[in-house]
Amino acid sequence: MLSLGIDIGGTKILGAAVSQAGEVISEHRVPSPAQEPDQMVDTVSKLILDLIAENGEPEAIGVAAAGFIDRSQSVVLYAPNLNWRNEPLRERIERKINRQLIIENDANAAGWAEFKFGAAQKYDSMVMLTLGTGVGGAIVDGGHLMRGGFGIGGELGHITVVSEGHRCGCGRKGCIEQFASGTALLREIVALADSKDAKGDLLRKLRAERGQLTGHEAFEAVQANDPGTLELIDQLAGYLAKAMASLVAVLDPEVFVIGGGLSELGEKLLVPLRQKFALEIPASGFRPVAEIIPATFSNQAGVIGAAQLARETLG
Amino acid sequence: MLSLGIDIGGTKILGAAVSQAGEVISEHRVPSPAQEPDQMVDTVSKLILDLIAENGEPEAIGVAAAGFIDRSQSVVLYAPNLNWRNEPLRERIERKINRQLIIENDANAAGWAEFKFGAAQKYDSMVMLTLGTGVGGAIVDGGHLMRGGFGIGGELGHITVVSEGHRCGCGRKGCIEQFASGTALLREIVALADSKDAKGDLLRKLRAERGQLTGHEAFEAVQANDPGTLELIDQLAGYLAKAMASLVAVLDPEVFVIGGGLSELGEKLLVPLRQKFALEIPASGFRPVAEIIPATFSNQAGVIGAAQLARETLG
Repeated sequence: MLSLGIDIGGTKILGAAVSQAGEVISEHRVPSPAQEPDQMVDTVSKLILDLIAENGEPEAIGVAAAGFIDRSQSVVLYAPNLNWRNEPLRERIERKINRQLIIENDANAAGWAEFKFGAAQKYDSMVMLTLGTGVGGAIVDGGHLMRGGFGIGGELGHITVVSEGHRCGCGRKGCIEQFASGTALLREIVALADSKDAKGDLLRKLRAERGQLTGHEAFEAVQANDPGTLELIDQLAGYLAKAMASLVAVLDPEVFVIGGGLSELGEKLLVPLRQKFALEIPASGFRPVAEIIPATFSNQAGVIGAAQLARETLG
Repeated sequence: MLSLGIDIGGTKILGAAVSQAGEVISEHRVPSPAQEPDQMVDTVSKLILDLIAENGEPEAIGVAAAGFIDRSQSVVLYAPNLNWRNEPLRERIERKINRQLIIENDANAAGWAEFKFGAAQKYDSMVMLTLGTGVGGAIVDGGHLMRGGFGIGGELGHITVVSEGHRCGCGRKGCIEQFASGTALLREIVALADSKDAKGDLLRKLRAERGQLTGHEAFEAVQANDPGTLELIDQLAGYLAKAMASLVAVLDPEVFVIGGGLSELGEKLLVPLRQKFALEIPASGFRPVAEIIPATFSNQAGVIGAAQLARETLG
């Protein structure tokens, strides 16, 4: 029987009917009314009803969103990009669609997809790091998805890696999100292009041609083995390895799964990351060492995981 | 029915018969042959047989030790203070006593005692920090004791708090253990006494009287409200609050339980710790905040937790 997964993002909402094997059978995508909570409820409800009309009554329905979800998986405590504060999202959508559902943090949903059906399916314990606009995370220990006492665990972007480093949106300083997100990489790329360093030549050339530097140009520079850009990736990998070392001390996962937009850099990121991580492991040589592997799913991880978590909770 | 808990330390071994309610019914204490693995097996086995002779056949037997215990709870992968490396401790003791047992990391055992019977018994999710010679930890999420993929999770002393800070025994730098353990506090106390700072006057006076500065003198200086020593406690609380902020991002516990020798400082430590923690919480004001409370059990936490974990695993 199919289960429905919805992934509410800042620019789009993805909805899918997902099989018991984690396959996306049918998918809908609509623009996200990110700044309008009321309209968001209507849009998500309509998306769900459309999927039901198309695929039949589902076993369960799960909705993933970027934000702090309370422990009862009902209320969005805080979602900075979606203009929500203490929003009883579950109840509001349930009333519209006249069916039960669960809500879940989007990174937890994506992590659960990788754990059940993707990169980490042969492991019992995993840490997923999602390197995108920010840095998100999900933790599984002994098959148990770690949600935290208030439902807000696994916010791995906010581990400190640089004392008194860049200020972060969370109010603290030096969070790994400020050093290992796509946003952070782009900040460094622009700074290199703005500098007088000869290593910025290719980036300056790309900027002159395209009018701006985005993730697309960054990716192009990496593919061209631009030494300046590769040095920035190396630097990013160094910071990420430090955060992962602290995570090894705390969580001791069997595997790190690297997802999010930056994971599209593939081995260009993973090779330096594995090298630097090997140098940072606490009590290295006295313990088994976690593997570092790329995520299997990209944009569909959230809907697959939300559908599966809903099935396990409500099905 | 009683269950037996053994806690192997560097200087002593504690053994106890523990009731289902977590009460210690009978207790034995023997010196620890820390540097002699063979003798350790004999000593622990004899301690267990003595407890059985005295209290009757137990429901289960659990042995706690400071070190990396493998995921099958059988082998001590590494125990720096006990001279063990890949030691099949479970099997060796089982053969001697002709009964089944489990082995468990001592900090996990202590944490489980606090979670089931002590300070954290009304919570579902907890982080325990044990501030002693080093900094140890235990993590419970939604009633699940986090052991890690290889059995070595919860080594909370090795979260980095100061980039390029003091070198740690684990091979890395700036671990919280180097700033918030009893050893670290004493290092700072001796440094203050060695300095020309007038704030070290009381410490210098105590050293002149006693010949050295130990935890005892530190405790006395704190009780006397010595400004120099209180400033060092304040500094320690500041570092610990930073580590706890990273732990909030990762684990989001409902409560932090503070145990170990330094917890005997009581409110003299907890008051500045709570103040500094409040300033460090990521996304403060947008989330529920963990409480910070002292541990209930002191030296008996390990035996109570080991006995209880054994009961739950084997009973």
